[in-house]
Amino acid sequence: MTSMTSTGRADRTVTMREVAERAGVSVTTVSHVVNDKPGARIGAEARARVQQAVEELGYRPNVLAKNLVQGTSAFIGLVADSIATTPFAGQIIRGAQEEAWRHGRVLLVANTEGDEAAERDALAMMLEYKVRGILYSTWNHRATAIPDALAETDHVLVNCFAPGTPTRAVVPDEVDGGRTATELLLSQGHRRIAFVNTTSPSPAREGRLQGYREAHAALGAGVDEALVLEAAPEQEGGYAIAEQVLSLGATGVFCHNDRVAMGLYDALRERGLRIPGDMAVVGFDNQEVIAGHLRPPLSTVALPHYELGAAGVRVLLGAEEVEPGASLRVACPAVTRSSIAAL
Amino acid sequence: MTSMTSTGRADRTVTMREVAERAGVSVTTVSHVVNDKPGARIGAEARARVQQAVEELGYRPNVLAKNLVQGTSAFIGLVADSIATTPFAGQIIRGAQEEAWRHGRVLLVANTEGDEAAERDALAMMLEYKVRGILYSTWNHRATAIPDALAETDHVLVNCFAPGTPTRAVVPDEVDGGRTATELLLSQGHRRIAFVNTTSPSPAREGRLQGYREAHAALGAGVDEALVLEAAPEQEGGYAIAEQVLSLGATGVFCHNDRVAMGLYDALRERGLRIPGDMAVVGFDNQEVIAGHLRPPLSTVALPHYELGAAGVRVLLGAEEVEPGASLRVACPAVTRSSIAAL
Repeated sequence: MTSMTSTGRADRTVTMREVAERAGVSVTTVSHVVNDKPGARIGAEARARVQQAVEELGYRPNVLAKNLVQGTSAFIGLVADSIATTPFAGQIIRGAQEEAWRHGRVLLVANTEGDEAAERDALAMMLEYKVRGILYSTWNHRATAIPDALAETDHVLVNCFAPGTPTRAVVPDEVDGGRTATELLLSQGHRRIAFVNTTSPSPAREGRLQGYREAHAALGAGVDEALVLEAAPEQEGGYAIAEQVLSLGATGVFCHNDRVAMGLYDALRERGLRIPGDMAVVGFDNQEVIAGHLRPPLSTVALPHYELGAAGVRVLLGAEEVEPGASLRVACPAVTRSSIAAL
Repeated sequence: MTSMTSTGRADRTVTMREVAERAGVSVTTVSHVVNDKPGARIGAEARARVQQAVEELGYRPNVLAKNLVQGTSAFIGLVADSIATTPFAGQIIRGAQEEAWRHGRVLLVANTEGDEAAERDALAMMLEYKVRGILYSTWNHRATAIPDALAETDHVLVNCFAPGTPTRAVVPDEVDGGRTATELLLSQGHRRIAFVNTTSPSPAREGRLQGYREAHAALGAGVDEALVLEAAPEQEGGYAIAEQVLSLGATGVFCHNDRVAMGLYDALRERGLRIPGDMAVVGFDNQEVIAGHLRPPLSTVALPHYELGAAGVRVLLGAEEVEPGASLRVACPAVTRSSIAAL
């Protein structure tokens, strides 16, 4: 059962029989100890001898055999459209993996790059490996359809959701994030705050705008609708919108993401304007390579990717309760740097 | 063997017996067809009936059982220090996964964040799952020690190497990359080219400098050693070095990476200088979120992360030959954008 002939290293492989001989017990006893067989009556002394022999010989139990007996594996699947290759969304994988390990589970990751055939293959592979369940995730927060194969096992959506289905989801709280970003400016006395939203319809666009409004409302401050702008959600969009932000007499600006803020920085600098003295700027995402290294370093709100992955595993394993069809919303915390001055 | 009771979805699970009944053959015949048993004599018609029944019923063979019989699994392990969470190095995972799939293998990924205990756990887990072999990789190109457990199976290093050992490695060709970056400037007539190298000792520092020298030598052009500078390899380093680059009368500058170029851009802009008219700039890495979105978009050289992962799998599976102790060097291609003008 433990031979590894196909790797050509059989010389290094220790068998269960060798462990039994060293410990002076039967192979059956070794098997029961190694596989934690429930109900097996084994004396403490024999158990200790087996464990010592396992350690001395470097014996590695065959988990494949163990899984087969149990009818399920220690695996949790994570199907991702491109989070392994999207800057910073890889933290979803890290959060899911570390939480899985805490529960004695192993994460099987498949990156599909949004390709349907690759997705079908990935799901089929995971079902064949008898995963305990599957996390289905997207690099950006959005609505999604549920592939048929996903319904064959327990599953939880991460960073996406399936409206009108009983599927459970874990998503960032966009409203909370929008409110937090706006409060960073309001708390420093700013009242004419432009919001450069994205042109792409998405939960991020709707949610962050709602948060922007709620933050003003909580202070009894009105929102001048002229201050709500839209731009392509990258550096080029932020650069192009600068003139409009300035013409509206804004003293602060909340950008849909850090990349927009980066482009806006360039445009302001070209006009000889200083951040935060002439314009206070807040981003969204906390994209490390950018946010912490702009001049001045950008105050922003973090997308909680690590926590999305970790919470997804907890929901899948029943360690955290979410009603069917409901979404667990994870807060987006403020990251304060130097791009906001008091008005 | 195919029950999935622990997921609570046994109602959906199709057994091998049901397939046998539908196809009108024995369970043994189904098992032989499904597991591609070598030497089993099964008629073409019976085989077709089994395959049809498998499809109609949605039967999923139990790969765990198959692996157990074979003594090895379809898995290839990938142990990474933090490439899943480092912007753009995640492409190593994508390249390894897609190449593994092309060979009918499945990639097991474990991210260790450089933690030794996590690394031990990851390697033990992979050995227990009887992986065909393990890729051991680092987010930055560097020398590494080989963990003991890695020696228990076939292994290949990716983006790292182990000097003085017989271990095979796949690494970026830093010399080639440095030469390519320098040639982008030389070919446009630049002869006073500053090189802002990193302060961190690394194969990247040595290799890119060698490439910078070789590109000059190939043209019979001398290198003014005063033009070889060093700075911290991030935006702050590039910003701080600008004054020195300008004082040396350089017309072009090759930056150790795109982040350095981004900081240099800021410093040049503050002085009212234009890129590429007043200064031509080349980066290294092709970090998508940055390089393509600077003003002007940055000409650079790509780190071939996808290809490193794919080549690692090919070497592990013997589809590409590398001598023991040798490194396969993967070229770093030029990515031309708009930050270089002819002199």
